[in-house]
Amino acid sequence: MARDIETTLREILGTGPFHEQMGMELVRYDAEAGSVEILLRWQRAFEREEGTKQWHGGPIAALIDIAGDLALVALLGRGIPTIDLHVNYVRPAIDTDLVATARTLRAGRSVGVVDVEVRDVGRRIVAVGRGTYSTLAPEPRG
Amino acid sequence: MARDIETTLREILGTGPFHEQMGMELVRYDAEAGSVEILLRWQRAFEREEGTKQWHGGPIAALIDIAGDLALVALLGRGIPTIDLHVNYVRPAIDTDLVATARTLRAGRSVGVVDVEVRDVGRRIVAVGRGTYSTLAPEPRG
Amino acid sequence: MARDIETTLREILGTGPFHEQMGMELVRYDAEAGSVEILLRWQRAFEREEGTKQWHGGPIAALIDIAGDLALVALLGRGIPTIDLHVNYVRPAIDTDLVATARTLRAGRSVGVVDVEVRDVGRRIVAVGRGTYSTLAPEPRG
Amino acid sequence: MARDIETTLREILGTGPFHEQMGMELVRYDAEAGSVEILLRWQRAFEREEGTKQWHGGPIAALIDIAGDLALVALLGRGIPTIDLHVNYVRPAIDTDLVATARTLRAGRSVGVVDVEVRDVGRRIVAVGRGTYSTLAPEPRG
Repeated sequence: MARDIETTLREILGTGPFHEQMGMELVRYDAEAGSVEILLRWQRAFEREEGTKQWHGGPIAALIDIAGDLALVALLGRGIPTIDLHVNYVRPAIDTDLVATARTLRAGRSVGVVDVEVRDVGRRIVAVGRGTYSTLAPEPRG
Repeated sequence: MARDIETTLREILGTGPFHEQMGMELVRYDAEAGSVEILLRWQRAFEREEGTKQWHGGPIAALIDIAGDLALVALLGRGIPTIDLHVNYVRPAIDTDLVATARTLRAGRSVGVVDVEVRDVGRRIVAVGRGTYSTLAPEPRG
Repeated sequence: MARDIETTLREILGTGPFHEQMGMELVRYDAEAGSVEILLRWQRAFEREEGTKQWHGGPIAALIDIAGDLALVALLGRGIPTIDLHVNYVRPAIDTDLVATARTLRAGRSVGVVDVEVRDVGRRIVAVGRGTYSTLAPEPRG
Repeated sequence: MARDIETTLREILGTGPFHEQMGMELVRYDAEAGSVEILLRWQRAFEREEGTKQWHGGPIAALIDIAGDLALVALLGRGIPTIDLHVNYVRPAIDTDLVATARTLRAGRSVGVVDVEVRDVGRRIVAVGRGTYSTLAPEPRG
C-alpha cells in the first residue's frame, strides 16, 4: 500500500509539461502524517537576472504549491486542486538547490491546509508558504 | 519621462532567463496610478496535464507576482523585491491566453501593496492575488 | 424573498455575544451579486493606545471576516464558516467610523472567495482583505 | 536586560483599551529567538453563538496579530506595526482557553515575518497564522 502512494507521488511529479520542465524529485514522504520532502535542482531557466544564479520567486511559489498538494496526496491518495496559496519570501536563494518540506495541518471533509518550508543547501529558510486545497472535488484546477 | 517608464517596464519583462521564458507582454500602464496590464500567452510548457490545455497554477502565481511588481515599478521607476504573495485560484484556465491587471493600493516608505486580477480571453476572473513588496531596499529577491 | 435575505443578514449581525459587542450595521446588500456594505462605528473598546483614537487591527480583521461571510450569506441565504483570511493594513484609521464593502468573487460547490475593502469616513482605504469560506458545510467555525 | 524585555512585553499586553479588554497573559518568551507564548482565557464576549461556548474567529485573528507582534518585540525591544496577516482556521475552538505560540522566521531591516500557532487546552491546533510586520518605522498602525 505504501508503495502505491510512492508510485502515485512520483507519477504526479513526473506528469504533465509543467512538472516535467520543473524536474522535481521526491526525497521522502510519510503517508500517515501527510508530509513530503521535494527537491528542486537549480536550473538556469529559474534565474532572475542573467548571471546572478539567484532564484526568481516564480518557481519557488510553484514548488510550494506542488509540495503542499503532494503532502495531501500522501495522506489521501489522490491529487486535489489548490484553493489558495500564501508565500513569504524570507531571503534570496542564490546558487543552490532547494528542498521543500510540506506537512499537513488539517485534512477535513472539504478542505486541507498544508504548511511548507523551502530551504537552501545550507538548511536556511528561503521561503515559507501555506496552501489551502479542496479535498472534496476531483475537478481539476491550479 | 513616461517614455522612460515604459522602457523600464519592457526591459524588466524581457530581462533574465525566467522572464524571457515566460514571454510576457506589456499591454498598458498608468504611471500615476501605479497600474499595469500584462499579457501572458498560452504555452505548452504551462500545461498541467498533457493534452488538457489547462494552465498549471505555478505560472499563474508567477504572473501575479511579476505584474504586482511592475505596478510599483510604473509608480516608482525601479524594481523592488517581493515580501509576500497571496493567490486565490478562482476557476480553471483552459485553452486561453491570460491578462493580469495590477493596481497599487499603497506605496509607502517601506512597503507597497498591489492588487492583481488575472482574466481569461472571455474576461472571466481566473485568479486574484495580492502582493506586498519592499519599497525601501534595492536588494534583489522574489 | 429579498426581504428574507435582509432579515437573515440583520439577524446574523445582531446575534451572539461577539457580534452584539461589535455593533455592526447593514448599510446595503445585493443578493444577486453577493455583496454587502457593513458599518462599524468607532468605540473606545477598539482603541489601540489610550487617547489616540486609533483603531487596533483586531476589530478591523474581525470586520473583514464578518463582512466577507455576509457577502456569501447574501448570495446563498445561509451562514458559512471561514477557512482562511488575509488582511493587508494599508493605513492607520484614526477617529473615524469604518465601512467594509465585501463582494463575492466566486461561490463554488465547496468554496467561496470574497474580496473586502475597509474605508474610513473620507473613503480612503484603511485595509483590504480576502476571505475563503466553506460553502459546503453547515458545521460552525471561525 | 532580559528583565527589561519582559517588562516591555507585559506593558504592551496591558496597554490600551483593546488589549485591556482582551486580557492576554505572557506565558513565556525567548528574546534571542524572538518567540513568545501568550494565553488568552475564554470570555463570553468572544462567543460566536449564544450558549455554544465556541470562539468567534475575530478574537483568534486578533490574538495571532498581537502574538506575532510580540515575538518581534521580544527580539527587537520595540513595538512595530502589522503590514499583513494571514489566518487559517483549522478547527472550532469550544469551551477552552487558547495559547498562541509565535516565533520569528525573519527580522530584516524593513520587514519581519512571524509564524503563529494557536492551540486549545488539549494542545490541538485551532488556527495558524503568519504575520508580516514593518521593522523599519515607529509610525503606529494595525
